[in-house]
Amino acid sequence: MSVEQTPPLEGPVCPLPLRHDEKIVMGHGSGGRMSHDLIGRLFQRPFDNPALRAGDDAGIVTVPPGRLAVSTDSHVVTPLFFPGGDIGRLAVCGTVNDLAMMGATPLYLTAGFILEEGLDVAVLARVVESMQAAAAEAGVQIIAGDTKVVQRGKADGLYINTAGVGALAHDRQIGGAQARPGDVVILSGPMGDHGIAVLGARGDLGFDADVASDVAPLNQLVAAMLAADPSMNGVHVLRDPTRGGVATTLNEIARQSDVAVVLDERAMPVRPAVAAACEMLGFDPLYIANEGKLLAVVDPAAAESVLAAMRATRYGEEAVVIGRVQATPAGRVLLRTTIGSTRVVDMLAGEILPRIC
Amino acid sequence: MSVEQTPPLEGPVCPLPLRHDEKIVMGHGSGGRMSHDLIGRLFQRPFDNPALRAGDDAGIVTVPPGRLAVSTDSHVVTPLFFPGGDIGRLAVCGTVNDLAMMGATPLYLTAGFILEEGLDVAVLARVVESMQAAAAEAGVQIIAGDTKVVQRGKADGLYINTAGVGALAHDRQIGGAQARPGDVVILSGPMGDHGIAVLGARGDLGFDADVASDVAPLNQLVAAMLAADPSMNGVHVLRDPTRGGVATTLNEIARQSDVAVVLDERAMPVRPAVAAACEMLGFDPLYIANEGKLLAVVDPAAAESVLAAMRATRYGEEAVVIGRVQATPAGRVLLRTTIGSTRVVDMLAGEILPRIC
Repeated sequence: MSVEQTPPLEGPVCPLPLRHDEKIVMGHGSGGRMSHDLIGRLFQRPFDNPALRAGDDAGIVTVPPGRLAVSTDSHVVTPLFFPGGDIGRLAVCGTVNDLAMMGATPLYLTAGFILEEGLDVAVLARVVESMQAAAAEAGVQIIAGDTKVVQRGKADGLYINTAGVGALAHDRQIGGAQARPGDVVILSGPMGDHGIAVLGARGDLGFDADVASDVAPLNQLVAAMLAADPSMNGVHVLRDPTRGGVATTLNEIARQSDVAVVLDERAMPVRPAVAAACEMLGFDPLYIANEGKLLAVVDPAAAESVLAAMRATRYGEEAVVIGRVQATPAGRVLLRTTIGSTRVVDMLAGEILPRIC
Repeated sequence: MSVEQTPPLEGPVCPLPLRHDEKIVMGHGSGGRMSHDLIGRLFQRPFDNPALRAGDDAGIVTVPPGRLAVSTDSHVVTPLFFPGGDIGRLAVCGTVNDLAMMGATPLYLTAGFILEEGLDVAVLARVVESMQAAAAEAGVQIIAGDTKVVQRGKADGLYINTAGVGALAHDRQIGGAQARPGDVVILSGPMGDHGIAVLGARGDLGFDADVASDVAPLNQLVAAMLAADPSMNGVHVLRDPTRGGVATTLNEIARQSDVAVVLDERAMPVRPAVAAACEMLGFDPLYIANEGKLLAVVDPAAAESVLAAMRATRYGEEAVVIGRVQATPAGRVLLRTTIGSTRVVDMLAGEILPRIC
């Protein structure tokens, strides 16, 4: 049973406005009349597109010939709304970015909602509007969906899964295993905004951090980067440093490519407010989640033009070179500190910020 | 952050066996070392395939040229294990079937897990094995995934989202809006097994129903049906009557196609144990969920060969004609009762069996 089984918008139930005090009840997950009513009023209209409107078990679309990228992410962030974003924008951008990191053009998303009994329908409506705004910004369509309801105390307001399909119209081989000694490591902007913004929204900081989440779709940034690399093989790795932060993502790349990454501490971009919050809390910004940043490992011959292209885009204005790839110690990330020493930067070991995405 | 960001299986962490008392903790959702360890041990090996093994942000696959079907379903069934299946088999079959109902060949799935802190890792391992078994039976690969962990009391053991991609290599127009007056309505087997089996597993029946869920992948059944229709346009609608049951699904079709469906009560297949359970509980089997059945609306010229093809397959052995499509009363489902009267069968109004999928 899926969102897309909704009959076309007609009859008396669909145009009903939200009542301001309406709550999600178990019947909204029944697959029956109440599900159809909710879906018709909340999802069908904002997400409207031909595939969804058909009202069948799956959305039917046409994709360009070639390879496809397919990805998924579930989102359980708390609170649902935070400075700079909300769970809806996060859910769309998370999957758009996973597709973009393969060099794919994100085309279509699915959305699966798990709703807690008692959730304000108005909250859900705000989240759906935000998803649609993010989808429109990224240029993707939400073509299939699903809604489940669980009893009070069996979720936390709402959880959203998105999955996505993107087209790879080129033969570039972009992936975590493609980093090579000599490559340049670029970060698209300051670290840690998302994690600190969510923490601030929880009231866990004990002070006002004045930091907004960076959550954003990065597919247009990636398109600009690839366009600036006419050699077709200058961009070796793209990855968004979400949970676990820049440190964990670079460790993954170092292991997958069997190379070392050496970072320059002086070059690592961090906003003063994020740095201050991290210092107060004993966190290292290298491990704080980002939701609108990417790491790129680029051939030195392409680095200058790729960096210039990044800086000309909205979400890459603050891009900087943060380090280099070298052969040894393979599988390791090292940081050259401001005082000239070198330390190992390991993968995140435990949990520092639960449920930030 | 995705399952597929796991580095290749190597080093000392991956081959670690499960400890029999191991529990999910928040750190398993961190995106760091504990996430990688869990994913490497639990997901990477059973689901192993080239796209997943690459360990990137999205799985890269090649699909045949033509149209694609894309679908998603979240699964929140309780209990996690029930006679005939479990949440893992359900999650794979749910999305496989949504794709098959469009006449598509299911190819690739994604899996998103939301785990509750304190979940037995052994339970998760059983569910993953069951997913892989169902995927192998259906002939699909799980090429991307994601794992999140929420605190105790913020989920109910585990929830699974699956999304899927299927190829439409033909030009058939199969969909809920394609039913035409004169068409034959076929049901692939007895109604209500899944809902009653789950209810029985909860101990809610007060007696032993001795009913197993019908949860099964229906893509091979659909392939046989389409092969038995060389006209290429004899199969008009395919839909699996899950939440809301046969009654709700037929109401959806009647509305989408603007036709009436007339059912013959004597022809409606129900196992005696399901009928007995429904009678005790005051349920109508027409509204009870199925997870391994399909409704087909078929051109009368193709009905005989399609039905014969269904009966020759494992999951269509008990297929029967249950009714006919007629022009009026448009948008309605009617039931000719055994005593010769006719009553309206409406869509499910509220909720009778929460969280059965």
